[in-house]
Amino acid sequence: MKDVEVRLLEQPQLKDPVLIEGLPGVGNVGKLAADHMIQELKAVKFAELHSKYFPPQVLVLPDGTVRLVNNEMYYHKSKVKGQPDLVILIGDYQGLTADGQYALADTMLEMALKLGVKQVYTLGGYGTGKIQAKPRVLGAATNLELVKEMKKHGVVFRKNEPGGGIVGASGLLLGLGALRGVPGVCLMGETSGYLVDPKSAQSVLEILGKILKVDLDFTELMTRAEQMDKLAQQLRDLERAAEGPNEEDLRYIG
Amino acid sequence: MKDVEVRLLEQPQLKDPVLIEGLPGVGNVGKLAADHMIQELKAVKFAELHSKYFPPQVLVLPDGTVRLVNNEMYYHKSKVKGQPDLVILIGDYQGLTADGQYALADTMLEMALKLGVKQVYTLGGYGTGKIQAKPRVLGAATNLELVKEMKKHGVVFRKNEPGGGIVGASGLLLGLGALRGVPGVCLMGETSGYLVDPKSAQSVLEILGKILKVDLDFTELMTRAEQMDKLAQQLRDLERAAEGPNEEDLRYIG
Amino acid sequence: MKDVEVRLLEQPQLKDPVLIEGLPGVGNVGKLAADHMIQELKAVKFAELHSKYFPPQVLVLPDGTVRLVNNEMYYHKSKVKGQPDLVILIGDYQGLTADGQYALADTMLEMALKLGVKQVYTLGGYGTGKIQAKPRVLGAATNLELVKEMKKHGVVFRKNEPGGGIVGASGLLLGLGALRGVPGVCLMGETSGYLVDPKSAQSVLEILGKILKVDLDFTELMTRAEQMDKLAQQLRDLERAAEGPNEEDLRYIG
Amino acid sequence: MKDVEVRLLEQPQLKDPVLIEGLPGVGNVGKLAADHMIQELKAVKFAELHSKYFPPQVLVLPDGTVRLVNNEMYYHKSKVKGQPDLVILIGDYQGLTADGQYALADTMLEMALKLGVKQVYTLGGYGTGKIQAKPRVLGAATNLELVKEMKKHGVVFRKNEPGGGIVGASGLLLGLGALRGVPGVCLMGETSGYLVDPKSAQSVLEILGKILKVDLDFTELMTRAEQMDKLAQQLRDLERAAEGPNEEDLRYIG
Repeated sequence: MKDVEVRLLEQPQLKDPVLIEGLPGVGNVGKLAADHMIQELKAVKFAELHSKYFPPQVLVLPDGTVRLVNNEMYYHKSKVKGQPDLVILIGDYQGLTADGQYALADTMLEMALKLGVKQVYTLGGYGTGKIQAKPRVLGAATNLELVKEMKKHGVVFRKNEPGGGIVGASGLLLGLGALRGVPGVCLMGETSGYLVDPKSAQSVLEILGKILKVDLDFTELMTRAEQMDKLAQQLRDLERAAEGPNEEDLRYIG
Repeated sequence: MKDVEVRLLEQPQLKDPVLIEGLPGVGNVGKLAADHMIQELKAVKFAELHSKYFPPQVLVLPDGTVRLVNNEMYYHKSKVKGQPDLVILIGDYQGLTADGQYALADTMLEMALKLGVKQVYTLGGYGTGKIQAKPRVLGAATNLELVKEMKKHGVVFRKNEPGGGIVGASGLLLGLGALRGVPGVCLMGETSGYLVDPKSAQSVLEILGKILKVDLDFTELMTRAEQMDKLAQQLRDLERAAEGPNEEDLRYIG
Repeated sequence: MKDVEVRLLEQPQLKDPVLIEGLPGVGNVGKLAADHMIQELKAVKFAELHSKYFPPQVLVLPDGTVRLVNNEMYYHKSKVKGQPDLVILIGDYQGLTADGQYALADTMLEMALKLGVKQVYTLGGYGTGKIQAKPRVLGAATNLELVKEMKKHGVVFRKNEPGGGIVGASGLLLGLGALRGVPGVCLMGETSGYLVDPKSAQSVLEILGKILKVDLDFTELMTRAEQMDKLAQQLRDLERAAEGPNEEDLRYIG
Repeated sequence: MKDVEVRLLEQPQLKDPVLIEGLPGVGNVGKLAADHMIQELKAVKFAELHSKYFPPQVLVLPDGTVRLVNNEMYYHKSKVKGQPDLVILIGDYQGLTADGQYALADTMLEMALKLGVKQVYTLGGYGTGKIQAKPRVLGAATNLELVKEMKKHGVVFRKNEPGGGIVGASGLLLGLGALRGVPGVCLMGETSGYLVDPKSAQSVLEILGKILKVDLDFTELMTRAEQMDKLAQQLRDLERAAEGPNEEDLRYIG
């Protein structure tokens, strides 16, 4: 078994596709956004990545069957003028170790280059510690032209933010991609960081949809966002009941 | 020295054998069950696995001699009609790291494929936090036919349980096995998770015995279960004496 | 991608150059000193090192663009008689793991040997737990001749100090360098260990400048040192206000 | 650089030598014993091992020079009838990781086999939690004949002790050695585990000296033991003064 093993289910023929990454992270914003996109576009799975850098674990599905944890790649051929072909990367986990993260991002970029990927969008959350009524979308990019273009689409750029840089696949695909000539953008939806955040995922997708001329229905994300809002409200009520008026420090709820 | 080194003591000739894995884990249920099976069937050791993924450690035996920690494989040729030949995998430890777990499971499956293994049973415990009078056996499998078949034998399937998936060799042998065309089942005996649990091991073996048409004597496991029951009772008494009536939170006792 | 990937921007032709290392460490003394030297000498970047041993991370620059974390090498050709050509190594991080540290130091030394490096100076901080008005510079070297030479320049040698040895790149470049015939010196500025310490960096550079006959302007370091002094004073005031007269135990401030 | 790099200073010609290992461990008993043996016998260093599995660190020697942390091998040619040639392995550290321990022990055994080593003695401490007036020496061996032989020399064998097995180089050299046909014995001096223990080292050497017909002078170890006794007494006095009569729980003092 190779360190990162690619199982190709189909070899898609795509025209200048764009790679979209949405792996687990802060508020699960990137994962929620990419999962939603796959569902709405009925994108087709064409590859599975297994790796010794993932946890040694199978997931148990509702029907009692198991599936080895993995990352998956989907494609979507454009049906609309001006809309690019898409490759979407999702998964159960990111690599567990620093060197695993590098090895995985490296393999993903190799696959992307073979597919002719011309640009990368990595999706994630930007933890603010506060619950946002209307989360903004922060950006970072591999060159100044992309920064300017993103600003036109309403992406916010703040000097030296995020201060800690961008860690994990969302950062590495940009950093390693740039070294191989693939430009990229990271879109980060503001999120409390305490709760899985479908509202933030929607903010990210609204902007990404405009950029890529992809029209998405958000009904499902909005329903999930309402459920999370109710849950957050219940937690706040419980806390107030227990401790009197207090700070909004909620536990993380997956 | 290779990362995983197989020392073959004998090359058994088996007919469509079934692989049974019982390595250390929650309540040591899988290990107890597989160790008991080897003892009762007088299965024959044919391979030892050493690895840099195990602790750098020798065990000291009662006679003062030492043995490098390892995993071992035993075989048992069927003497009963309808009973398959068996390969049983036990050991002192599982791999210490995620990549070690993958490397070990990979080697074990390669060995299994060479031996012609047609199906895998991985045995383990399912931690419930409570001491069970009559532990049930939960299951997970690599395909729906196996799920149905297991249900007939009394294996319980609960939607999305275990929620955290199955971690370690019991999970990987199924997940990696399925990718190589070897179907598999995980049988998990309910257990408190605080104590080594021979009763849960017996529950698992009762069902596995029925599936494989292997008739096992449980006297020894029952004796050990009684000893553990007494020990647990003594601990509860001590705790009550010390703190007054209180929760049943016992320390783990190997 | 190799474990340590060298991206050569230019192949400098140098005459018997000296390698100066200043990577992050105690009080960031080495990094501050080497960064300052590069700036003052307008040294030219000629190589970037990326590695799976660094964090999987991009940094976000003020203009919204990103850069993969790395180590960088600069050169400076001598314009003054008696002053050697210089190779200066700086970076965002040191290797995250022990084996990563070895692999990185190994690659750096290979590069140094190809460039004809004749001697190594590694720069760092020596944590004393106290804020020093005039930090001294402690030394360690790969041979006795260098120890004697350094003493002449005012470098302090104290028996068996630092007691814990020298850990990280500053140590390894000396230790591995000596095995390959490249002599070296470590210069350690005394520092509290709680604060980034430009004053200690200046002390180190004053001595290094004398050794290498490099004349440096310290205005910027002095400005930063004054800022840190004010910050430290504010922290002490805050602490005294809060707790009454107390020990000088400040939090680390990057 | 290889994972474990052997720097051979000399190729000794030895007749059926015995390998003695004394690396850092509980009470530093093994290291003290082997260091003492080298000193008393004026054994000759013939090899240095460097490795990425050791800490990335140089030690600073009294004269201000540095030395990369390592393991070292010495030899001693027999001058007495019945006394075997010796190879003695000492060092600053053991491998930091489990796989590093395996890789190091593997390399050491390869070297031992090339030197014609016929038997291994690994030296260590056995932590009892109590300060022993006259520490006994416990043993473990790779075969029953050696167990019997050791008992004749006063080595104590207790059923299943040490319960946790023997971890690190002292264990692996026996376990891996046995797999390659080199028999071995581990001699463990009883020690509190809180203090560096020259008295326990002496106990181990007294027995090892008898076995190998090596006559050693213990003056230096006895002086160090007296110093440690005084130190321990001072600590006990301090503790009693501070807290009244209390348990003998001393901090570890290197």
